[in-house]
Amino acid sequence: MSTGTMKAVVRRGPRLLVADVPDAVPGAGQVVARTLACGICGSDLHAVHHLEHSIEMGRRSGAADTLDPAQDLVMGHEFCAEVLDHGPGTDKRLKAGTRVVSTPFAFSELGPELIGFSTRYRGAFAERLVLTEALLLPVPNGLASEAAALTEPLAVGTHAVAVGAPGERSVAMVIGCGPIGLAVIVALKRRGIGPIIAADFSPARRARAEQLGADIVVDPAETSPHAAWSGFDVPATLAEMGLAQMAGRSLRDAVIFECVGVPGMLQSLLENAPPGAHVVVVGACAEDDRILPVLAINKQLRFSFVFAYTPDEFAETLQALGEGEIDPSIFLSGQVGLNETAAAFERLGNPGNDVKIVVEPWR
Amino acid sequence: MSTGTMKAVVRRGPRLLVADVPDAVPGAGQVVARTLACGICGSDLHAVHHLEHSIEMGRRSGAADTLDPAQDLVMGHEFCAEVLDHGPGTDKRLKAGTRVVSTPFAFSELGPELIGFSTRYRGAFAERLVLTEALLLPVPNGLASEAAALTEPLAVGTHAVAVGAPGERSVAMVIGCGPIGLAVIVALKRRGIGPIIAADFSPARRARAEQLGADIVVDPAETSPHAAWSGFDVPATLAEMGLAQMAGRSLRDAVIFECVGVPGMLQSLLENAPPGAHVVVVGACAEDDRILPVLAINKQLRFSFVFAYTPDEFAETLQALGEGEIDPSIFLSGQVGLNETAAAFERLGNPGNDVKIVVEPWR
Repeated sequence: MSTGTMKAVVRRGPRLLVADVPDAVPGAGQVVARTLACGICGSDLHAVHHLEHSIEMGRRSGAADTLDPAQDLVMGHEFCAEVLDHGPGTDKRLKAGTRVVSTPFAFSELGPELIGFSTRYRGAFAERLVLTEALLLPVPNGLASEAAALTEPLAVGTHAVAVGAPGERSVAMVIGCGPIGLAVIVALKRRGIGPIIAADFSPARRARAEQLGADIVVDPAETSPHAAWSGFDVPATLAEMGLAQMAGRSLRDAVIFECVGVPGMLQSLLENAPPGAHVVVVGACAEDDRILPVLAINKQLRFSFVFAYTPDEFAETLQALGEGEIDPSIFLSGQVGLNETAAAFERLGNPGNDVKIVVEPWR
Repeated sequence: MSTGTMKAVVRRGPRLLVADVPDAVPGAGQVVARTLACGICGSDLHAVHHLEHSIEMGRRSGAADTLDPAQDLVMGHEFCAEVLDHGPGTDKRLKAGTRVVSTPFAFSELGPELIGFSTRYRGAFAERLVLTEALLLPVPNGLASEAAALTEPLAVGTHAVAVGAPGERSVAMVIGCGPIGLAVIVALKRRGIGPIIAADFSPARRARAEQLGADIVVDPAETSPHAAWSGFDVPATLAEMGLAQMAGRSLRDAVIFECVGVPGMLQSLLENAPPGAHVVVVGACAEDDRILPVLAINKQLRFSFVFAYTPDEFAETLQALGEGEIDPSIFLSGQVGLNETAAAFERLGNPGNDVKIVVEPWR
């Protein structure tokens, strides 16, 4: 095994640069893998400038302290990689050369750590990385590596829709059509849920929402997406909902996926969501936010805050990609090497036509 | 039918006084009933000083405009009454003399109106009131009228627990042991859910929570109620929850009932609730509140905001009272006439030993 160094994109202070870092060395139950592709996530963008704040939020949420912001950080948790070598105590179920994805977890005496947000477990914006053998899933059906790297963000959509649990009579709304909003649309379509109302300020993202099958696609600068509910027999008021129930008439219910995560989004839903709506909060607003709770009481709203996915949801999403149920080309908008990664972060900070840019360290 | 006047407690500006108001005259499908008992609710207390704000909150929640704050308002929606006479188009299913309760709704061309929060449909802090015949439920088994008047607030607890849907492995926490928090404890005990952790600053309310069967009763001025989770195999962190799942070990889940409704309560739950907790928000905070949503994301919390009850939950709660499943004496802490009602409101504004004071206009 290597005891040398490898190239990686490191976050040092609020800057990204390419540097030599210690090579990936697998411990017990681990493998070392060569990164083939790794998507840039919104949480990576956020961490460049706000890592200390994210750590503080994690600490306040009960997470173990596994990240020292003073040290170089190698991010990258949406990866596809090729098994190179096995560490001690592995069963070598997947041979060297096998292309794999996995949930971005590793385990230490501190508990589970998030690969790419851990000082010990470097992420995949690097030539190689250490993975936990037990979590590896082989890439099925010759699926392209950059497509397999979409498993992680798509699984976030799978999970959000599983928690939202829309039914046959539900009308879905997706607010924000970045990678996560689009992943939610994919998951809704795969479950046969519709109509889907989608909203985003970016014309390029609205076009992708349409390509994925959203039924009504709205520019919130021009129209409130909430104007669309009335076309689908969703009650406008609690009174209307109550009267319909008394009359034995079944109205449709609203399931709303909040995929933006900036202050003001939740209050806008308290004001504008139909009564009885279930709001699935996928966008992580890391700043103080203001709400007026009595509106949520009066309208009997529900809010489910979601994070990540279960291992089953992750595996099922990979399977769907492998079976061609999901068109990866709608998500992929760039493939860059390590030297271009910092520029790609800049581009995504102000996305025009971009959705998902994938880093390919071998380029 | 009377075309005279009757005595009522009216809210005029931010004051309560006893006045003569037009007598109750039933319209089509309605009856006139003599008030036997009507509980004073927290929302009545709130409305004395903040009626205009409550109306504005209702308007922003989509409620119809059925309340003119410039006119005298007769509140009172937790009532037991005796049928006096039937209006036109009634089927007279329940004869004059029958004691009844009902959900506090009436219907006009504006839609459903809340009896006691409507200019047209006066509440039960009055000698008589108009009720909708179709909604009347006879008081069963000779249940005392002041106990039957508890149906409404107890039904709020029934509904909150139905929405919270705790399971066999759930640990419940009730924050705030006013009438609604106590009603939640009643509903939890009736479903066999336990352990129940309850918290309130008032020793008298803590004593009542204990009488109702709460297992751990905490003074939050001394101890955080959240310290109690660890005794019941509820996970402290998302990581612990995830590892237990991977190991196939089933930890217990937390269902928390927020029955206080003042700013800061929700953020305190974002900070202190166990991961995966389901928070049922019963307390209506009518002021701007601050939350830090990313904590709820990191912990995958759910918030269900609840209001009132379904007709079935209301009827089922009355039935349970009639069958002696609920001890009304734990709730009742005073019975007053119309002339003492304003003073009772004052008392409840700063409740020492009080829980529910019932107005009996015939006194």
